[in-house]
Order: sequence, then structure tokens, then C-alpha cells
Amino acid sequence: MMSNSRVFDRDAVPDVVVQRLPIYLRTLAFIADERDVISSRELGALAGVSAAQLRKDLSLFGEFGRQGLGYQVKDLIAELERILQVDRVWPVILVGAGPLGRAIVNYRNSFETWQFEIVAAFDNDLAKVGQTLGHLSVQPMEDLVSIVQDGGIEMGILAIPPGAAQPVADTMVDCGVRAILNYASTRLVVPESVRVAYIDPIVSLNGMTYYL
Amino acid sequence: MMSNSRVFDRDAVPDVVVQRLPIYLRTLAFIADERDVISSRELGALAGVSAAQLRKDLSLFGEFGRQGLGYQVKDLIAELERILQVDRVWPVILVGAGPLGRAIVNYRNSFETWQFEIVAAFDNDLAKVGQTLGHLSVQPMEDLVSIVQDGGIEMGILAIPPGAAQPVADTMVDCGVRAILNYASTRLVVPESVRVAYIDPIVSLNGMTYYL
Repeated sequence: MMSNSRVFDRDAVPDVVVQRLPIYLRTLAFIADERDVISSRELGALAGVSAAQLRKDLSLFGEFGRQGLGYQVKDLIAELERILQVDRVWPVILVGAGPLGRAIVNYRNSFETWQFEIVAAFDNDLAKVGQTLGHLSVQPMEDLVSIVQDGGIEMGILAIPPGAAQPVADTMVDCGVRAILNYASTRLVVPESVRVAYIDPIVSLNGMTYYL
Repeated sequence: MMSNSRVFDRDAVPDVVVQRLPIYLRTLAFIADERDVISSRELGALAGVSAAQLRKDLSLFGEFGRQGLGYQVKDLIAELERILQVDRVWPVILVGAGPLGRAIVNYRNSFETWQFEIVAAFDNDLAKVGQTLGHLSVQPMEDLVSIVQDGGIEMGILAIPPGAAQPVADTMVDCGVRAILNYASTRLVVPESVRVAYIDPIVSLNGMTYYL
């Protein structure tokens, strides 16, 4: 049986392990309709790691599965959701209502399935303010601080040009945002307590051409 | 002086190091207009790694910079471009002409600045075939094989729903694609000689909520 009160030292887990957990969670969710149980070998293969790596990663958070019996898929999903703190809904703001912002909002159902609710979209282009972006109406940048503060919002997505990203990130951090998903192709300077994840197709492509 | 004929063992470099090189290259490109020289401490800080890590990573490829003098920005850019094999133009195909595909093509100038040319876009939705997607006209999936083979194209971008990704990836691999940038939220099974890079905002968000 799994326990709801698993104890582990959150700060002691290497970041590289933490970054693999969402991939395990994603993989499990894909097979949850078809499978009740999965071996570490199978789950590892689907997630792109060895069985040993998978078992070692999970062992940092306690005991999972039973020797020779594999993992209960639904139980492991629930455990990973708790570990990753996605057993609750996270409101997220989006800055940037261009084509990329539109594609992100279009992806809304996936975000919501995974407990991320895009609650507001902002743009500094007054021609875009008031326009419809999926289920949202684009708001002016001046509204950002009050909406973040009033909503206690801790997560934001940046889908703006690189030159504009740092000042917007500063504003977001100042009013309480602690995690930024940055699509702008520039590194952000933020306090140590703030997390930034980067999505940059060029960096990803460059990481593959090395091997061609 | 830098040499054009740097010798290193391409297969001996850990992938985690290879994946940091595009970030160094990006960071250098951002400062190239303002700076001729940069120290490992400064470049590391901008790229999000320690000076020691940066020096250690670069040391795998030979000698860069001079003790106490820092790196010549333009020379290091040229070296990294050679190492990453982006000192040439890579034609890329795009599969998926929905909102995400549109946003990707809209980002075309950035791709081209970085030597990636999106040369064709495909969709299995006949209503989209023939429509304009940026500078391209959407083509039917049946045209994919001949265009990839005739063009000797080795890179492709998947911007389609997860359920459709594996068969399309199989087709791409069969006709010669060796690197896939996958926006579909599913792991792909490909031969060992093929590289896949994943872009998944949910996975990135899940990797941050752990720390909130």
C-alpha cells in the first residue's frame, strides 16, 4: 500500500531527478487506461531511461511497487502528483498575446488536464488589449500586478520577444510569481527562490545537430 | 588563435555537456554586439552555470580563451557553431499546420538566423492543405517522403496531437530524418541513431511546482 504521508527531504533530491519525474508521470498517464500494473523495465523504456535509473530515482522518495510485481499505475500516478505538488490546481498568467500566446491558450485543455489554469493574458500592445485569446480577453500590462497579488498567483508564462522579457520577469517576481516558463530566447536573472524553465526550439535543435 | 581543425572525440562528450553548448552559444550571440571579450565567470553567470562548469565543459573540445584574458566572443561563437555543426544551413520540415505550427513558422526569422530553414509544412487535414502558413503552402502528408528524400532533409518538427506522433515519426525516420523536435506530448520510439528533443510545457511546469 502507498501512504499519503510519505516523508522525504525535498531539498536533498538532485534537480536532474526532479526533472525526470514529470516524464514518468506523463508516461504513466498515457498508459493508465490500458494498464493497471507496469514493470520498472517497461516504464523506463517508455520514459527513455533504464529500469535501474527509474528505480533509483523513485527510491529517493520512499518505497514504490513490490519486488517482482511492478508498480500499480494509478497509485504511482497519485504519488508522483503529490511529490510534484500537482495534486492541486495552479493558476497561471500568460504574458504575450501574439501567435505563440494564442497557440499556448489553444493548448488550454491540456494545461487544465494537468492542473494548470491559464487565468489571465496580458500584452503591452494596446491594439491587442480587449481582443479575445481563447477563453480570455487580453488585458493591459498595468493590470498584471493587481491580478497576480489578488489571486495569489505563483506561476507565469512569458511568450514575448527576448528584449522585453527581463523587465516583465522582474515585475512578475516583485508581485509574487515564483515560477516562470520562459519562451523568450534569453536567460532571465531572478532571485534564487524563483524557478525558471526555458522553452527554446533553437536550443533544442542545436542540441541535436551535434550528433548528425 | 583558434584553429579550424580542432580535434575531439565527438562520441566521448557527455550528452549533458552537449546540451549546454547551445545555451552558451545563445548567450554569446546576445552579447556579441556589445562585447569583444568575456570572462568565464561572466559568461557562466549569464548562461546559468558556474565559471568552473563552463571551463570544464569547453575543455572537452580543446583550449579556449587565455588564462586571465577571457574568451574572444566572436571566436568562441565560431568554435561553438563548428562543434554544434550549425556552421551550415539545415533544412527542416514541419508536420502540423494548426495554431502551434503557425506559431513555429511565425518564428521563422529566428530559425533562419540560427541556420534552420523550414522548407515544407505538412498536414493530414485536407482542409488545411493548400492554405498559407507563413511563407509556405501546406502540403498533404503523401508528399512528405519524396520531399524529404529529394531534399536530403535530416531534421523535422512534429507539431501534431500525441496520438498521431509515432506513425508520422516512423515515416520520417524511414525516409531519412535523423533528428526530430517533438512538440507532441508523447515519448517517441526511434532507432538509436535518431535523436529526439522534446518540448512540452506541461512537463516544464511540473518540474517547477515541485519547488513551490
